[in-house]
Amino acid sequence: MGEYHQREQQRLSQQMQFSTQEEFLQQLKADYRQILLLYFANDTKVKQQIDKFINLVFHAKIPVPQIIEIHMELIEDFSKQLKIEGRSDEILLDYRLTLIDVLAHLCEIYRCSAS
Amino acid sequence: MGEYHQREQQRLSQQMQFSTQEEFLQQLKADYRQILLLYFANDTKVKQQIDKFINLVFHAKIPVPQIIEIHMELIEDFSKQLKIEGRSDEILLDYRLTLIDVLAHLCEIYRCSAS
Repeated sequence: MGEYHQREQQRLSQQMQFSTQEEFLQQLKADYRQILLLYFANDTKVKQQIDKFINLVFHAKIPVPQIIEIHMELIEDFSKQLKIEGRSDEILLDYRLTLIDVLAHLCEIYRCSAS
Repeated sequence: MGEYHQREQQRLSQQMQFSTQEEFLQQLKADYRQILLLYFANDTKVKQQIDKFINLVFHAKIPVPQIIEIHMELIEDFSKQLKIEGRSDEILLDYRLTLIDVLAHLCEIYRCSAS
């Protein structure tokens, strides 16, 4: 079985674990939320979380703009929460580093998997 | 001729235009510097510049950490310059958006080119 078919099968079986594509995206968003929450907490789990997230994204071939959208939606949620609490949301700019980190790893995985 | 060989040939001919790999990296750095300088200038040329840069990086299969390094070296250069001029370098944080933009585009090209 070629690598293409293997990957396709992996992708399908992964998606079948979730009843809909929407549910899959919600899972990705929950995973990415965990990454953001742990990213500056010096938690060793964050590396594993990023690896898990990137693995899912890579095998499901999620378009990159969709990842950016997940990031922006979460930052907006956090911003609203901070505003409710009367706190500045300037700190959220730091999460751009998280996105850079995730995109860099994902891009490197695609690059290395390219023939 | 398979796609792999085509791409390999394209990569080699591209690299031969530069006498050394180092010269090639210097060219990439100069191109990326232009992108940074134009990025917030509302210049329509920036999209073309990004496309050109990504095309070079993609065909030469430059490792992503090397792009991050180019970015960081240039930001450090800019920071030194701003400090000499007695200005705050806080504005340089905005260039993280440029890096996100470049990585997102590059990653999407690798994703779409993957079988």
